[in-house]
Amino acid sequence: MHFKIRPAKKEDCKEISRLIMELAVYEKMPDQVKIAHEVLVFSMSYNCLTPDPQFHCSTSVELERDGFCENPFFQCLVAEVPEEHKSKEGFTVVGYALYFYTYSTWKGRSIFLEDLYVMPEFRGNGIGKGLLCKVAEVGKKKECVRLQLSVLDWNTPSRDFYAAKGAQDLTVSEGWHAIRFDGQSLDNLANEAAKI
Amino acid sequence: MHFKIRPAKKEDCKEISRLIMELAVYEKMPDQVKIAHEVLVFSMSYNCLTPDPQFHCSTSVELERDGFCENPFFQCLVAEVPEEHKSKEGFTVVGYALYFYTYSTWKGRSIFLEDLYVMPEFRGNGIGKGLLCKVAEVGKKKECVRLQLSVLDWNTPSRDFYAAKGAQDLTVSEGWHAIRFDGQSLDNLANEAAKI
Repeated sequence: MHFKIRPAKKEDCKEISRLIMELAVYEKMPDQVKIAHEVLVFSMSYNCLTPDPQFHCSTSVELERDGFCENPFFQCLVAEVPEEHKSKEGFTVVGYALYFYTYSTWKGRSIFLEDLYVMPEFRGNGIGKGLLCKVAEVGKKKECVRLQLSVLDWNTPSRDFYAAKGAQDLTVSEGWHAIRFDGQSLDNLANEAAKI
Repeated sequence: MHFKIRPAKKEDCKEISRLIMELAVYEKMPDQVKIAHEVLVFSMSYNCLTPDPQFHCSTSVELERDGFCENPFFQCLVAEVPEEHKSKEGFTVVGYALYFYTYSTWKGRSIFLEDLYVMPEFRGNGIGKGLLCKVAEVGKKKECVRLQLSVLDWNTPSRDFYAAKGAQDLTVSEGWHAIRFDGQSLDNLANEAAKI
């Protein structure tokens, strides 16, 4: 199937938001993905409404604000198919790769792939691989020496795919753990800063 | 002990490079840290020369280029003590926190703490905690909802410190693994992009 990968424009944010929602449903509720996906696809709003009240993903307005400003927080590529191959629901933007630049004080510039997603009915056409390779190409052009990403341990298809392409699992090989402060714990830290 | 935390200036890059080197020695060679530290401290060049030929950390020139340009790849805070408390070797910049902004499509703006380091002889004075809190404050001002970082599994003092401050270990609680492409595997991906 023919497809095109191109940098996202501000006008794509509504479509990207829809795809973020689909990916979130897949990652957040692996056992319910089928039904959740149907709920999603037949929802008219794509407004992050799911059975899980904790569930939130970036809306189109947030994406426009954070990705299309001076010093953007992220950048994005989208995969597009021609009109004649549009999805059942009429979509032509069928996948995305959202990334940003990070920095290693040991190695220098890095690119981090936050999200990589292709709609289920378009998988098996090389679109996911295409998006990954294009992000690598963008990174190399910016003189990045690493492309990093995070993956869930139960997501064997993705882990195998990355391993087959030569990636290292740093959690397994070197013992790196991801640590997060948010909500009250983040507020507490920030409030203590005022006393210093 | 009195100390001040302030944003790094371009002129601080030589000092930051020295501290990066110390942290790298600590993380890379835990069993050899004492001797490696002495090698480092008595080296006149601080030029990333260690017994490990794989060992490289960002030089002052790289830091100036990548951190003090338009759209910088990172930002940095330094901890400074007054002249009368300078280190044995005469240093007053005794710690640093290097960070950058990332993005979660579920939650929005995040801040990532890449390095946090305080020289051993200045530990126990709240400087590390001060740097962490100041980064949290910087993040909150930018409307970040998360502060994230990575830690090695053998680094129990740091893991305990973050846990005591309310951080979640996402590798333990949710199963997130860190994946990396670099060297040949990154080149291979980028080269494949040209064929798409």
